[in-house]
Amino acid sequence: MSSTLQQIPDGGVTSPNGFHAGTAKAGIKDGLLEKKDIALLYSEVPATAAAVYTTNLVKAAPLAVTKESLSKGHCQAVVVNSGNANACTGEQGVADAIEMQKLAAESLGVAKDLVAVASTGVIGVTLPMDRVQKGILAAAETLTATGSEFAEAIMTTDLVKKQAAVKMSIGGTTVTVGGAAKGSGMIHPNMATMLAFITTDAAVEQSSLQQALRQITGRTFNRITVDGDTSTNDMAVLLANGVAGNDPLSENHPDWPVFLQALEFVALHLAKTMARDGEGATRLVEVSVAGAVHEADAEKAAKTVVGSSLVKTAVFGADANWGRIMMALGRSGAEVDAAKVDIWIGGVQVAEQGLGLPFDEAAAKRQLEEDPVVIRVNLNIGEGAATAYGCDLTYEYVKINGSYRT
Amino acid sequence: MSSTLQQIPDGGVTSPNGFHAGTAKAGIKDGLLEKKDIALLYSEVPATAAAVYTTNLVKAAPLAVTKESLSKGHCQAVVVNSGNANACTGEQGVADAIEMQKLAAESLGVAKDLVAVASTGVIGVTLPMDRVQKGILAAAETLTATGSEFAEAIMTTDLVKKQAAVKMSIGGTTVTVGGAAKGSGMIHPNMATMLAFITTDAAVEQSSLQQALRQITGRTFNRITVDGDTSTNDMAVLLANGVAGNDPLSENHPDWPVFLQALEFVALHLAKTMARDGEGATRLVEVSVAGAVHEADAEKAAKTVVGSSLVKTAVFGADANWGRIMMALGRSGAEVDAAKVDIWIGGVQVAEQGLGLPFDEAAAKRQLEEDPVVIRVNLNIGEGAATAYGCDLTYEYVKINGSYRT
Repeated sequence: MSSTLQQIPDGGVTSPNGFHAGTAKAGIKDGLLEKKDIALLYSEVPATAAAVYTTNLVKAAPLAVTKESLSKGHCQAVVVNSGNANACTGEQGVADAIEMQKLAAESLGVAKDLVAVASTGVIGVTLPMDRVQKGILAAAETLTATGSEFAEAIMTTDLVKKQAAVKMSIGGTTVTVGGAAKGSGMIHPNMATMLAFITTDAAVEQSSLQQALRQITGRTFNRITVDGDTSTNDMAVLLANGVAGNDPLSENHPDWPVFLQALEFVALHLAKTMARDGEGATRLVEVSVAGAVHEADAEKAAKTVVGSSLVKTAVFGADANWGRIMMALGRSGAEVDAAKVDIWIGGVQVAEQGLGLPFDEAAAKRQLEEDPVVIRVNLNIGEGAATAYGCDLTYEYVKINGSYRT
Repeated sequence: MSSTLQQIPDGGVTSPNGFHAGTAKAGIKDGLLEKKDIALLYSEVPATAAAVYTTNLVKAAPLAVTKESLSKGHCQAVVVNSGNANACTGEQGVADAIEMQKLAAESLGVAKDLVAVASTGVIGVTLPMDRVQKGILAAAETLTATGSEFAEAIMTTDLVKKQAAVKMSIGGTTVTVGGAAKGSGMIHPNMATMLAFITTDAAVEQSSLQQALRQITGRTFNRITVDGDTSTNDMAVLLANGVAGNDPLSENHPDWPVFLQALEFVALHLAKTMARDGEGATRLVEVSVAGAVHEADAEKAAKTVVGSSLVKTAVFGADANWGRIMMALGRSGAEVDAAKVDIWIGGVQVAEQGLGLPFDEAAAKRQLEEDPVVIRVNLNIGEGAATAYGCDLTYEYVKINGSYRT
């Protein structure tokens, strides 16, 4: 991390000033009150808001409701439930999402169209609204939850909570960026089953904020893949409440690069933690491709390698099967000249100019047992570079997903 | 099957007249003579030839050699080895493929450029040419192998051999079509790790033969997926030696549709057997999509559903998680109106107009335990229809691919 950014230990969405959280156990999935499954995020003042949504044509009900509310660029609260995605639930689903928005607005005393709604969990089952209602009321009661509790409440099959926060100086004023995310399966470029909430107490112009979110999403959330499936529910919401009192930031502000760096640091931390926590995963896999004709090609190549089932199983088995990396590069859609490709697994170069090198199998195996596993590729035909993040494919993935619903 | 086609029990590449096969155990993978790994296919007279190749930009050496030789539309022999893909082997690999071609040509007494070469197995290791040479000479010695033995010799991680043959009457002359294939992992639309050899004793004009192969490939081999990975080695070769003595066939011949039907029957049988034998698979999965705006959209939708890791694991776990089918439809790139989608699992309708129906979980579970599992979708927005084939994703897939090479 750049020295201009200072990471906040255990920091999260409530680290920036003026943000508060509330959580509750509502028993949404099965009536059991085992896990927090309602989370509220509240800003003391209306915040400038930016958002990006899933590219899946089948969109969950909360997305339409949130998109409509945030279309004016403002948001003061977010209500999230885990355990049920409220997707493929038709008109009832939309009515339920609107009801969630209304319940959160009333219990927090904010305008209805300043509330974003998000859901994650099983698809195709309508929400148990009686439980949801009780949960929202309970969560709104104190608003003394920590960022960690917020991050826990939005988890589904996630094994670890995902959060981060950094602070920096913007024109002499201390500004903080925090974030929380959930995501474990169905994670793939273009907003997978992923919810991400990023908060900042900076004052930021709305159009700049939206552009910043798009930019960092392209380099972080959209560069992770777990299983190639894309969810119906993904969204990333970025709220800037201005409580820090800085001069409003925009692209022209001299400290804009620092602020962008902070956003990207938080988003990348969340993204890598999601990839590392891919369902059943034992290791984070980072694939860096350099020497592509441009960044878009490098990104395609890196994502294809990190998303290949054959590469993922080879990593799980710690088998330095670099031929599969070549295969994935060749089908990635990126321009590739097989005779120019260099490949490294960790520090061990395994292929040069498209040909296998004699290498120490035991050393390569050790590199594949590290966490993260770092695979580097040089296509040697240009200057484009990109890194993508994923995980290994394991017995446990099959187990988790063979019996998620029933 | 249409009544005009008659399936030949245990038929394969040697069922059509004038085709012979030879096989040998050469110990190509590890020096052990456990499995047949060299296969020769020989036609008594030069045959008209058609071929299609992998779309992967990283292509194995034998493809270039075969493509060059078959470019004139004729072929009299095919030499195949399993156990080593001769891919990512650089100039040495090309020299080795040319040497295989030369050895086969000499030992069979045919012109070098009438010999196709194919390899399948591990990537990135040069062929043990001394063993390959011994194997080719041994296989050429008698040429009395059955179609079954040919089909076995080209297998890698395949558990079952893939072959089929049918006969029909073309203008009063009996004509036979036979075929063999290998393929198990890395199987995905656009020629996956798949080798397919189809033979016929019909006389067929070359341009019609090539067009027929493209057409049936699009509806059979390119509609199967195992893990989304596409191999460097795939090819399908179709040889028509004219030994049956029929009037040469072309698109304008009145019996052309019957001949096409025979080709498609054989290719579809091979394709479905490959999907069923996907690495670690326990069941064939057939996904039929109707009501798409056109066939290309139906194909996209069907392939995406059958290729989704989340759908595949749900099938393995016999979990009627139809939301995952909706999710896959939504990200398929096909035009989809979520509010119009109907879904059936076997005979059980689970969703209507995008909403879950109350259905008998136990009945749906039984349908998911059948082999094949049949999933039907109606998008209800057009007339396009297509079926794609795949398999479930199991612990065994992870096991096989976690330790394929070492």
